[in-house]
Amino acid sequence: MDIASLRAQHPDHWKKACAIRTLTLDAVAAANSGHSGMPMGMADVATVLYEKHLNFDASQPDWPNRDRFILSAGHGSMLIYSLLHLTGDAEFPIEQLKNFRQWGGKTAGHPENFLAKAIETTTGPLGQGIAMAVGFAIAEESLRARWGAKIIDHHTYVIAGDGCLMEGVSQEAIGLAGRHELSRLIVMWDNNGITIDGKVSLSDRTDQIARFAASGWDTFECDGHDPADIDRALTEAKASAKPAFIACKTHIALGSSAQDTSKGHGALTDAKLIADTKAAYGWDYPAFEIPKEVKSAWEAIGSRGAETRKEWEARFAALSDSKQQLFQRQFSCEAPAKLAAVIRAMKKQAVETAPKVATRRASEMVLEVVNPVMTETLGGSADLTGSNNTKTADLGVFDPINRKGRYVYYGIREHGMAAAMNGIALHGGLRPYGGTFMCFTDYARPAMRLSALMHAPVVYVMTHDSIGLGEDGPTHQPVEHLAISRATPNTMVFRPADLVETAEAWEIALSSKATPSVMALSRQNLMPVRKTHTSKNLTAQGAYVLEDATAKRQVILIATGSEVEIAVKAREALEAEGIGCRVVSMPCMELFAQQDEAYRRKVLPAGPVRIGIEAAVRLGGWDRWLLGERGREGKEAFIGMTGFGASAPAERLYAEFGITVEATVAKAKALLG
Amino acid sequence: MDIASLRAQHPDHWKKACAIRTLTLDAVAAANSGHSGMPMGMADVATVLYEKHLNFDASQPDWPNRDRFILSAGHGSMLIYSLLHLTGDAEFPIEQLKNFRQWGGKTAGHPENFLAKAIETTTGPLGQGIAMAVGFAIAEESLRARWGAKIIDHHTYVIAGDGCLMEGVSQEAIGLAGRHELSRLIVMWDNNGITIDGKVSLSDRTDQIARFAASGWDTFECDGHDPADIDRALTEAKASAKPAFIACKTHIALGSSAQDTSKGHGALTDAKLIADTKAAYGWDYPAFEIPKEVKSAWEAIGSRGAETRKEWEARFAALSDSKQQLFQRQFSCEAPAKLAAVIRAMKKQAVETAPKVATRRASEMVLEVVNPVMTETLGGSADLTGSNNTKTADLGVFDPINRKGRYVYYGIREHGMAAAMNGIALHGGLRPYGGTFMCFTDYARPAMRLSALMHAPVVYVMTHDSIGLGEDGPTHQPVEHLAISRATPNTMVFRPADLVETAEAWEIALSSKATPSVMALSRQNLMPVRKTHTSKNLTAQGAYVLEDATAKRQVILIATGSEVEIAVKAREALEAEGIGCRVVSMPCMELFAQQDEAYRRKVLPAGPVRIGIEAAVRLGGWDRWLLGERGREGKEAFIGMTGFGASAPAERLYAEFGITVEATVAKAKALLG
Repeated sequence: MDIASLRAQHPDHWKKACAIRTLTLDAVAAANSGHSGMPMGMADVATVLYEKHLNFDASQPDWPNRDRFILSAGHGSMLIYSLLHLTGDAEFPIEQLKNFRQWGGKTAGHPENFLAKAIETTTGPLGQGIAMAVGFAIAEESLRARWGAKIIDHHTYVIAGDGCLMEGVSQEAIGLAGRHELSRLIVMWDNNGITIDGKVSLSDRTDQIARFAASGWDTFECDGHDPADIDRALTEAKASAKPAFIACKTHIALGSSAQDTSKGHGALTDAKLIADTKAAYGWDYPAFEIPKEVKSAWEAIGSRGAETRKEWEARFAALSDSKQQLFQRQFSCEAPAKLAAVIRAMKKQAVETAPKVATRRASEMVLEVVNPVMTETLGGSADLTGSNNTKTADLGVFDPINRKGRYVYYGIREHGMAAAMNGIALHGGLRPYGGTFMCFTDYARPAMRLSALMHAPVVYVMTHDSIGLGEDGPTHQPVEHLAISRATPNTMVFRPADLVETAEAWEIALSSKATPSVMALSRQNLMPVRKTHTSKNLTAQGAYVLEDATAKRQVILIATGSEVEIAVKAREALEAEGIGCRVVSMPCMELFAQQDEAYRRKVLPAGPVRIGIEAAVRLGGWDRWLLGERGREGKEAFIGMTGFGASAPAERLYAEFGITVEATVAKAKALLG
Repeated sequence: MDIASLRAQHPDHWKKACAIRTLTLDAVAAANSGHSGMPMGMADVATVLYEKHLNFDASQPDWPNRDRFILSAGHGSMLIYSLLHLTGDAEFPIEQLKNFRQWGGKTAGHPENFLAKAIETTTGPLGQGIAMAVGFAIAEESLRARWGAKIIDHHTYVIAGDGCLMEGVSQEAIGLAGRHELSRLIVMWDNNGITIDGKVSLSDRTDQIARFAASGWDTFECDGHDPADIDRALTEAKASAKPAFIACKTHIALGSSAQDTSKGHGALTDAKLIADTKAAYGWDYPAFEIPKEVKSAWEAIGSRGAETRKEWEARFAALSDSKQQLFQRQFSCEAPAKLAAVIRAMKKQAVETAPKVATRRASEMVLEVVNPVMTETLGGSADLTGSNNTKTADLGVFDPINRKGRYVYYGIREHGMAAAMNGIALHGGLRPYGGTFMCFTDYARPAMRLSALMHAPVVYVMTHDSIGLGEDGPTHQPVEHLAISRATPNTMVFRPADLVETAEAWEIALSSKATPSVMALSRQNLMPVRKTHTSKNLTAQGAYVLEDATAKRQVILIATGSEVEIAVKAREALEAEGIGCRVVSMPCMELFAQQDEAYRRKVLPAGPVRIGIEAAVRLGGWDRWLLGERGREGKEAFIGMTGFGASAPAERLYAEFGITVEATVAKAKALLG
């Protein structure tokens, strides 16, 4: 790599790119932590992207029709912080960069969307960015079809590294993007041949260009340090009718003594190395100082898109009031006023008709009334449409010949689906939900965690939520997955007991602006348990008294989902023997925990024996309600699973694992002594 | 598909394959559940594989040098059950097939390795089989290099469907196999063009042949219903010097009215459909009846490999006694006698030298003494070798030019690594361990769950186990991951506090025959807490009294890992004020829960205030020890995390999130009132 000739050939470009490189070196040195090599390697690509292609306005980084830029290789966060500072984003004054990776700053270790307007996504867990970008591109296609190109018409650019491409989720993303011909998606691969452990070839020899081409992408190559070549490749990629992959040949930690080595991946903090590198760059300024003409040139780039943004605003203002309101509502994640009405009507009807349906079917019934009044929903399933009951009649299928379709066949790609839904939710304007079996929460976990961390209100439709799945056996029977989701911060886990609770859960999930929801739904049909109509959303309280004791209250049965039916029947049996028994339905532990002490005390008073019933492990949050909240050790029990399930019809499994009315009654009596 | 000509051209083959097809139809009908189409579609491929290629002996299905057959498309479990019954495997009499998917049988919904000797792996969660197969192939290469081709020399065959290939983990597996030139790995793709939601093309248009070729595989194609063509392709694949991919063009649910449709994927139970299909097959026998000549032909296949097996036994018997013993020990997963000795010595030395090291470094120190005496270990990391401290000096790197190398650079493939380790463990003869960051447990989850379900004693080295990771921020800081692993049945989660506990944890993990272990290890240096040597493995009790109160015992602090140091210091402060305080170190909740009540009571007596300290969420099992086990609500507290972490140096994070000595002391005093 001949730095001297790069400097000589493109002096203005060189300085702009070096501003990124030196800010990176300075910030990483100040933090004594971070990743220097990637921003140093990709500075040229990023400079050309921002200068010539990316449609953005630093003064309004969140205007709706901006191009999206996603740094999938999130460890190179100083690349994006440098770009935001240089282009004049008000949230990134130089002090932010000086406080890189410190408490309370916006310059977190990895980019975090909830800290700054200009950061589209949270990245760092590798592969997530490229997979979310597919969601952004789906959202763009869908919204362009709905609103017209005058309102939505933009690209999604991704910088991805070898780590992103080695992670399996990238294959799911690539396949999905290729299938849907997402031509506005452009992935720039930081092809530097280096990972943390050494050369990429230590662990992978995949021909990435051939791999992307195999899934229907157009592929391009460029010298990632030659601005003219980068510009050519980006121009060609934008002209492609397919998603575009640009292999940018780069040198990690360019110009430093750590160039082209795995050392260069990490934090370059040695003072001499930094001084030598800056000397090689011809950069003779103090740390964090950017020469005025360079900063001005960057700020001109930052304001380059202001005119385009204003033109868009004029076009938007020309829309009818109702269209503007709809757009604003959908982009601000407000549920429509009609949602409450259709849910209320559905609940009323449910009480009247008392259908004995699986909650997965109940979920479909709810979606049938919700989807028509909430046109921002975008449904889907990871190849279990008929089992997840996620597709309602009116949706239409999203594909290249029907971009208005509101249902995505995600394929056998739980992880890719979850990541795409994150991207769809973060893009704005749409509300994604998608289904798979509850057990395969496992596959989607990295993206589900990001939903929670990123405040993305994705709805996960997780059917077949227990051994009630039956014959498919333990590989498909979740026992620890309620615990997994409940242990995750900022996640609502709903396990509704019947159609009424399912409707209530959907109302909460679809009204959420910053919290994802997991709907744990039964395969098997369930007896309706809500027998009287109330317009109030009882699920919103997390738990409530479903049926109270008539005799003196000696027992409280607390159950969720499919086990509420068991509790109701056990109560009948106990009451028949004169033992007063309350049934508490607890469709959402997180929401119950948020209620005030007085309410919780009302639902779970001290005194009676308590039994929790859930066909899952007790570690899923049960001890708090059984031992805590005025419970007493020795006067409580849990009826659920202690190990993996087995293959057999559901009824047999419930009997064998002792999750039955009889076991509940016997346990209650034993505890009463 | 012209069934008539297939029948006419290959009459003997046809009958054998139809035995699989009709047993599948009959078993699925009897169970009223299952997947008919895949075994019907792949019966020809499986028949040729078993008849002409697979080296096995039905009378001794677990002899060590057999070829491994892995049904990655595990939903087609009737394929393998039919094959096992037909070839005369004693564990699969016809009654087993008649009781397909019923309680207590070996014919579970999906194949389960722990139910029958001939079933190599548990499959069903898609993509796992192909990814485990890479581990089997790694094990074979490694063991062939160690033991010579006279002792280990076999192939690993996989049947994979579109679902397996769409799952991202398959890409990780493909890349790893291609890099390592695993020429004994042969994947047969059931290329039927159908998924549950409809045609594969609904969600994917990937050119699979090009994709595998891009990662260094040799690729082949065949007509999956033409036995001669299948035989040719398998013969060519075996001759390849690379891993081989055979695209077998097949028709799902061949010969039925559901052929080539997504309906054909599921349970074909309609009596007329079954009758019509059998008629088309020219199969005129009652359900579950196999004509004698067909059964005899299959049994001949089943005994075809007996001679080979006996020849192997003779070669094995010619090995020296010590070699035979070593082989037997390693294949039966027995730890060597020396393990206890080196652990004891390390513990003694640790107490003497009291090194202040991170437990990830402690783990490396343990491996440095263990790896030389336990040569069956096969280490690795998902591209975090230097951070996970998984590579010790003497291991050497496993690759095509050094098959004896005992360290695998798995690349940025946590999921693929975990699945490969499952395969390595199930192959037998090796004991895999592999590292990544604890937070990326998420990526590996589906395979980690299978480790537990399959009784595979894999060791997961999960470093950077809390906010102690510091500046990388919340995307890299686990808070719910201890809960996730603890909620998983048959999993030991170790969070050692210092070098002594780390050594003890490794001793337990490496002695385990049927339970995987998760080692949660700190990034940051920790103060040694075990100050006196005892040869007894205290970690094996799960929790123990580390330091007891000198004054009257009013407080019990229970802590794990990096927070034990906080507990020890808080105790000092409390004792200095005359408040008697016990510190309980709890490196493994699962093992403590297994202790008898008397021991648990001794460690956690009733009376004192209890405070749990762990930089993670309380839901990770804490309520049992704080509220239960003689605890009292209102006299307990938990000091840990309630949400995601943040980016900052570790000390700052501990202070900001209130996980400190001061907070502990203050809480104890407040609870004492």
